[in-house]
Amino acid sequence: MEKLKIGLIQMRVINSKEKNLQKAGEMIGKARQLGAEVVVLPEMFNCPYDNKYFPLYAEKEGGVSWQAMSRIARTNKIYLVGGSIPEIDEENRIYNTSFVFDSQGEQVAKHRKMHLFDIDVKGGQYFKESDTLTAGNRVTVFDTPYGKFGLVICYDFRFPELSRILALRGAKFICVPGAFNMTTGPAHWELLFRTRALDNQVYTIGVAPARDESASYVSYGNSLIVDPWGKVLNRLTGEEEILVEEIDLTRIETVREELPLLKHLRNDVYCLTEVNK
Amino acid sequence: MEKLKIGLIQMRVINSKEKNLQKAGEMIGKARQLGAEVVVLPEMFNCPYDNKYFPLYAEKEGGVSWQAMSRIARTNKIYLVGGSIPEIDEENRIYNTSFVFDSQGEQVAKHRKMHLFDIDVKGGQYFKESDTLTAGNRVTVFDTPYGKFGLVICYDFRFPELSRILALRGAKFICVPGAFNMTTGPAHWELLFRTRALDNQVYTIGVAPARDESASYVSYGNSLIVDPWGKVLNRLTGEEEILVEEIDLTRIETVREELPLLKHLRNDVYCLTEVNK
Repeated sequence: MEKLKIGLIQMRVINSKEKNLQKAGEMIGKARQLGAEVVVLPEMFNCPYDNKYFPLYAEKEGGVSWQAMSRIARTNKIYLVGGSIPEIDEENRIYNTSFVFDSQGEQVAKHRKMHLFDIDVKGGQYFKESDTLTAGNRVTVFDTPYGKFGLVICYDFRFPELSRILALRGAKFICVPGAFNMTTGPAHWELLFRTRALDNQVYTIGVAPARDESASYVSYGNSLIVDPWGKVLNRLTGEEEILVEEIDLTRIETVREELPLLKHLRNDVYCLTEVNK
Repeated sequence: MEKLKIGLIQMRVINSKEKNLQKAGEMIGKARQLGAEVVVLPEMFNCPYDNKYFPLYAEKEGGVSWQAMSRIARTNKIYLVGGSIPEIDEENRIYNTSFVFDSQGEQVAKHRKMHLFDIDVKGGQYFKESDTLTAGNRVTVFDTPYGKFGLVICYDFRFPELSRILALRGAKFICVPGAFNMTTGPAHWELLFRTRALDNQVYTIGVAPARDESASYVSYGNSLIVDPWGKVLNRLTGEEEILVEEIDLTRIETVREELPLLKHLRNDVYCLTEVNK
């Protein structure tokens, strides 16, 4: 298998879980028609990105959004990286969680955002996820017929340690449902996707909600896919749109042979380890 | 102390150690006249970047190039990050080494490149430093009146672990004498300086030899300085030129307060440690 079509669903998220789920289903169906075999939804695709909504939209694993995603994956026969949704556990803790389904609709992975986004830029963006959310504490890698995928959510991606661990665990792709804003997006979004791809010689895939200037938190959009040489293969603007990109799976090994970064690590000088593994 | 003027010496390196040392002295003198308090030379500033020249130009610590740098630092009353030169040790091993001098001309640090650059891009760049050079194995941080500086050489900078360790050790600046080429330069040079600055919330300073299309290895040039938000403050082209940039030392703390990345590290999940410390 040398090619893979990945679908990025840059959907506009509104204040209606039902309509967001319906929209996700429609856009994924279109991506499937365009040949997508793995489809990625944006962060908080079923809920406006706003602390006041997270508790209202939160549901348990297996809830209505989970069921919708499972069904969409199964009926479209795709791998679905379900962006993220607010998940509530038995102790009423709320997480920013991504569920992943295989083409039979079985859950194959689950990532709870492990770095909570707290920012306060003078004259720019303010947001404190930690006001409502609890952080996860597990690194997430899952198998597919196309190779291993790593999965992080938005702010997680700012920490090079986590992407490196995914690569060391064998990930060839890093999926990042994310919602950068109009301060951090123009400054950092593409930069991070390019460097994490380059440093780890993997494909990086970022999927954001479409921009909605009327929202309390304005998503930058600009969903994109970057190759293992750090080159942007394709990217969207702020509009609601689908991107289906065919990628060359052999490119990963070619780049790793030409510039063998992962073999040149000096593990005798520094060492990055997982603590909770 | 809230301001610092840093001088970047993008000099053209030729096949004459004596003339290279002379040129370095002249350009540093000009940078001093422009107010530079810390001056950075490029990688292999006294020797063409070519495996056949490294053994011919190599000298012991305290040799003629070392003495010239010490004298230049003292007479100009500057901190001098001496790019790098081929250094030979008692066992005839050759290193790609950067010596650092304070404003009295005393050596305050020494970094031996610890990741050797071996690349073979189809239709692009080929080079194998490991044909002639031996790798160092020490992480390098030094104190100045302006704060702690970290020091790496060129290919070292491709490994996010090393820059992170410098930041965790307190570096507010990362100096990188480097010589990317016409394949990797346009693709990766600025990208790496921007992301390492952003990830670690430090200033990054890259200094390359000027471009010489007639050389066996063509340096990309583009010496630059990037702020802790990942913004390029200034950069040169391929020409021989001096850049003196005044930077705001308070910017580091401001960015770290606005977006406290280093406080958000999940050391309970992953842990980066120094092995040889």
